[in-house]
Amino acid sequence: MLNAMTSKHDLLTKFRIVLCQTSHPGNIGAAVRAMKTMGLNELYLVQPKNFPHPEARALAVGAAPMLEQAQVCDTLQQALTGCAFAIGLSARKRQLSHQLLSARAAASEAANIASSGQTVALVFGNEMNGLSNEELDLCQMLAMIPTDADFSSLNLAAAVQVMCYELRQAVLGDTQFDEANNAVPLASNEDVERLYQHLEETLVQIGFLNAAEPGRLIQRLRRLYARARLEKEEVNILRGILRLTQRPRPPEGI
Amino acid sequence: MLNAMTSKHDLLTKFRIVLCQTSHPGNIGAAVRAMKTMGLNELYLVQPKNFPHPEARALAVGAAPMLEQAQVCDTLQQALTGCAFAIGLSARKRQLSHQLLSARAAASEAANIASSGQTVALVFGNEMNGLSNEELDLCQMLAMIPTDADFSSLNLAAAVQVMCYELRQAVLGDTQFDEANNAVPLASNEDVERLYQHLEETLVQIGFLNAAEPGRLIQRLRRLYARARLEKEEVNILRGILRLTQRPRPPEGI
Repeated sequence: MLNAMTSKHDLLTKFRIVLCQTSHPGNIGAAVRAMKTMGLNELYLVQPKNFPHPEARALAVGAAPMLEQAQVCDTLQQALTGCAFAIGLSARKRQLSHQLLSARAAASEAANIASSGQTVALVFGNEMNGLSNEELDLCQMLAMIPTDADFSSLNLAAAVQVMCYELRQAVLGDTQFDEANNAVPLASNEDVERLYQHLEETLVQIGFLNAAEPGRLIQRLRRLYARARLEKEEVNILRGILRLTQRPRPPEGI
Repeated sequence: MLNAMTSKHDLLTKFRIVLCQTSHPGNIGAAVRAMKTMGLNELYLVQPKNFPHPEARALAVGAAPMLEQAQVCDTLQQALTGCAFAIGLSARKRQLSHQLLSARAAASEAANIASSGQTVALVFGNEMNGLSNEELDLCQMLAMIPTDADFSSLNLAAAVQVMCYELRQAVLGDTQFDEANNAVPLASNEDVERLYQHLEETLVQIGFLNAAEPGRLIQRLRRLYARARLEKEEVNILRGILRLTQRPRPPEGI
């Protein structure tokens, strides 16, 4: 059972990345970096060809310590111990009848399962051949990252990056982001209305707008500024400009 | 004006990837591979440190020919020639008041603009420092890929991969994918109902189900198979098993 206090961020610890028979240690390093940027930290390696390896550490950059915590296993079965669900990544449509979802839909399913407190594995095959049929048999679902039909050759670490990104988006959405974005205070409706009024007065005063035949000019300008979603400080700047347009200050030193 | 016959796939040609002051040629190669997997093909390089370079070709793999078509420019302004809109990628919240969107929301805006036939640039800064303030001034919007607060160090090519993936998703969604997925014919409702009936008969016959007190067993089995979304061929297999459960065939050679 999931503790009621478990935060959404903690759900990310319920995802396990499993890399099978990885040939290039650089891909393991780049994959662990990809995981860490998205807040995932459980890495299992099934028979990696060269591990540990300096190239893995080099490409992991700040995520290198996670390489030491990676579990190295002899079989995929071993790497799936403790998981409730395993999703295999596939670069192509398989003949057999695993349920096949897009990366986005699969991430959404994975997030659902994780939210019940269970661990979900994302299983990536070898760089050349992908997952073998025996490995696929241990997965309950297949996920495919949509790619160009003529060039579907995603790098392994790039595929890990996209899936970890989708898992993070499935769990957290853009909420984290909206919070950050809300830091800038937008101008209030009244402030913006006062700006429009000031703008109209000024345009009449300088002869750009004919008060008797205003046409649609003010509406167009309103639309422009509405799109810009003006901030408080920006309204102050614009009104400062209008004030000096109405009553220019003599140049300094005169 | 966009020709009415332009397909959704063609919209992907309206996106331009611009890499500024890239230090590592390997990142240029990995970026071009990332672009090609997602169907993008316009690459502009502003003052790349080492280009052309064998490492770029090595990491581009099958996308290497795209490197020869890349436009190398002296300034970002030059690289934005012909674009209607430029979106700068940012790893952190900036102080100035560019509109800042998540990767997903920015991709959606980019797709909207592209659908009017105009070119949209995605602008990526240098690996160490990101975009300079002068480069940002040439962008109309900022996009941020949501990452872990404590480790936001996305590799440049990984960031290109995520953005190109989001652009492809924004234009094509999972439609391409659904089409591929629909290739497997699901069993008809009648076929599945006949299976349930056959199953129930068989379970009564073998003494697993008491016809007088059936309880909720059949309902549970129905739910299980419903979740599995049975295919035509699978129903045939299950009914074959039931037939032989009811009337076992004597072992060969007797």
